[in-house]
Amino acid sequence: MRNLDQYNITQAVLARMANTPDPRLKQIMTSLVQHLHAFAREVKLTEAEWKAGIDFLTATGHMCTDQRQEFILLSDTLGLSMLTVAQNNDKPAGCTEATVFGPFHVEGAPHYEHGADVANGASGVPCRVSGSVRGIEGEPVAGALIDVWQADADGKYDVQRTDLPEAQGRGVLRSGDDGRFHFQSVVAEPYPIPDDGPVGDMLRATGRHPWRPAHLHFMIQAPGYETLVTHVFRDGGPYLDSDAVFGVRQSLVADWVQHPDGTYTLDFDFVLNRARPPATHVAAA
Amino acid sequence: MRNLDQYNITQAVLARMANTPDPRLKQIMTSLVQHLHAFAREVKLTEAEWKAGIDFLTATGHMCTDQRQEFILLSDTLGLSMLTVAQNNDKPAGCTEATVFGPFHVEGAPHYEHGADVANGASGVPCRVSGSVRGIEGEPVAGALIDVWQADADGKYDVQRTDLPEAQGRGVLRSGDDGRFHFQSVVAEPYPIPDDGPVGDMLRATGRHPWRPAHLHFMIQAPGYETLVTHVFRDGGPYLDSDAVFGVRQSLVADWVQHPDGTYTLDFDFVLNRARPPATHVAAA
Ligand SMILES: [Fe+2]
Ligand SMILES: [Fe+2]
Repeated sequence: MRNLDQYNITQAVLARMANTPDPRLKQIMTSLVQHLHAFAREVKLTEAEWKAGIDFLTATGHMCTDQRQEFILLSDTLGLSMLTVAQNNDKPAGCTEATVFGPFHVEGAPHYEHGADVANGASGVPCRVSGSVRGIEGEPVAGALIDVWQADADGKYDVQRTDLPEAQGRGVLRSGDDGRFHFQSVVAEPYPIPDDGPVGDMLRATGRHPWRPAHLHFMIQAPGYETLVTHVFRDGGPYLDSDAVFGVRQSLVADWVQHPDGTYTLDFDFVLNRARPPATHVAAA
Repeated sequence: MRNLDQYNITQAVLARMANTPDPRLKQIMTSLVQHLHAFAREVKLTEAEWKAGIDFLTATGHMCTDQRQEFILLSDTLGLSMLTVAQNNDKPAGCTEATVFGPFHVEGAPHYEHGADVANGASGVPCRVSGSVRGIEGEPVAGALIDVWQADADGKYDVQRTDLPEAQGRGVLRSGDDGRFHFQSVVAEPYPIPDDGPVGDMLRATGRHPWRPAHLHFMIQAPGYETLVTHVFRDGGPYLDSDAVFGVRQSLVADWVQHPDGTYTLDFDFVLNRARPPATHVAAA
C-alpha cells in the first residue's frame, strides 16, 4: 500500500474494499472503480480537468433542491437513465414499453374522478385523454392507479413555477371495472429541459439542444402487475428524433386527433406485464 | 434516434455529441459516456440502485460548502485523485514525488518569516521543521513559495473548526538564497477524514476506516520549476499501509526526531522538476 502509482492504484483500491459485507455493493463498487479509473487513464485526465470535474459535480449538487433534480437531468442527458430503464424493462411482446421517469414526478398528486380536468388551470389547448389498462392476456385491469403528469403550453411543469397554490397538469386516477379511464387536460407541447444550470452548460459545450418532443407521462400500478413508467409521445411534432434525454420509442408515439372545434383527443391503450420477482444479480460463489 | 435500447443507446449518445467544438472535451465526454454505460451494463444496474446513486451524489453535493469538499473526499477515497496525480507527475529520478492535494488547502494563508510559529495556537507537541528546496542539478532554489498546512493534535485542520479568529497550522514562507527554510509548528498526528457525510457512509458500507497516517502538506512553487504538491509522512505511525486516500509513497516517509526535552525536529529536502510545457492530449486528426 505504499508506492502506489498509476498502474497499481486500481488493484489497491479494490483490495481495500475486499471486506465489503454486502456482495452486491461489492460487485457494484468494484465495477465502478475499475471503469472510473479506466476512463481517467484512457483520456490521461489532467489535474486541471479533474478539478473542472469536481467543480461541475459540486455545482450540479448545489443546483439540486426539492423542485430541481440536476443529477437526474445529467443522467438523462448522458443516456444513463434510458440505459438503466431499458435493461430492466425487457418485457414480453405486446406489453407497453417503459421510458425514463424524468425529474418532474411528484408524490401525492391530487386524485381525480374520470372526466375531471387534471390541467386544473394549466395553460393550453383542451384535450380529452382516454384509454384502457389491460394485462398481457387482454384482461382488463380494474382499479389500476394511474399517475399522469405533463407540462403546460409554455413547456413548464407546475413544480417549475413558484406562483401556484396547487398542482396543475398532474393527477392520479383509477381505472374502472372495464380497465378504462378518461380525463380532461391540455395538449402536450415540446419543452426544453431546464438548461440554466451545469447540465445546460454541458449541453451547450457539446453542441446539443435541450428540447424534448411533446409527451404525456404515465405511471401505472396495479397488484399482480409490473409497474409501468412511460410516456406517450405526440406524433408529428419536432424533436422526436433528437430527444435531449433519449426517451422516444416508436411504439409510444400516438396521434393527438384535432377536432373541428379546435380541441383534441388522445386515446391510448396500455398493456401491463405480469409482476416478476426482483432481479438478483450476485451469482453464488 | 427512436427505439433506442440497452445495446444502441451508447452510440446514440456519442452521435449526439458529434458536433462538440472543443476536440479535447469531445474526447473526454466520449470516453466518459462509454465507461459510464459499460459500468451500468456490467453490473446490470437496477432502477433502485440508479436512484440510490442519484441520492448519493445529491447528498454529496449538498455536503459541499466553502469549508467542506465532499466530492474531493469521494475522489480521494476512490483512488481517482492519486491516479490523476500519478499519471501527471512522472518526474525524473531524484525529484520529490507528488501526492494528493486533499481538501484542506486554503488560498491566501498568512505569510511567515523563517523561524516563525505557523501553528499559531494549534494544539500539539512542538516541532521545528527545516529543509531545502533544490533543482534536479542540485542548485538551490531561492525565493520559492512554500505553502505548508497540517492538522493539530486532535487531527483537525483549522478550517474544520468554527471558533478560530485566524489561520492555525498553515502558512506561506519563502526559501532563502541558499534554498533553505525553517519554521516552528506542532507534530503531525494521524486523523480520520471527515466521515459524517455520504463518503463516511460509503467507507463504512465497504468495510473501510477513514484514517490517514500523520503528515505535513507542502506546495512549493518557483519560476522555471514544476509546482510540487506533496506531503511528508511521519515514519513509525499507524495507517502508513492503509491510508484512506491512497497517498503514501515510501520516498515521502521521514523521521520526526524526538529530543530529550520532548520536542521534535523534522528535516526534509525537496527537489523540484524543471517546468515543462502543458501536456496536449488530442492527436492531430
Ligand atoms: Fe416530461
Ligand atoms: Fe492532510
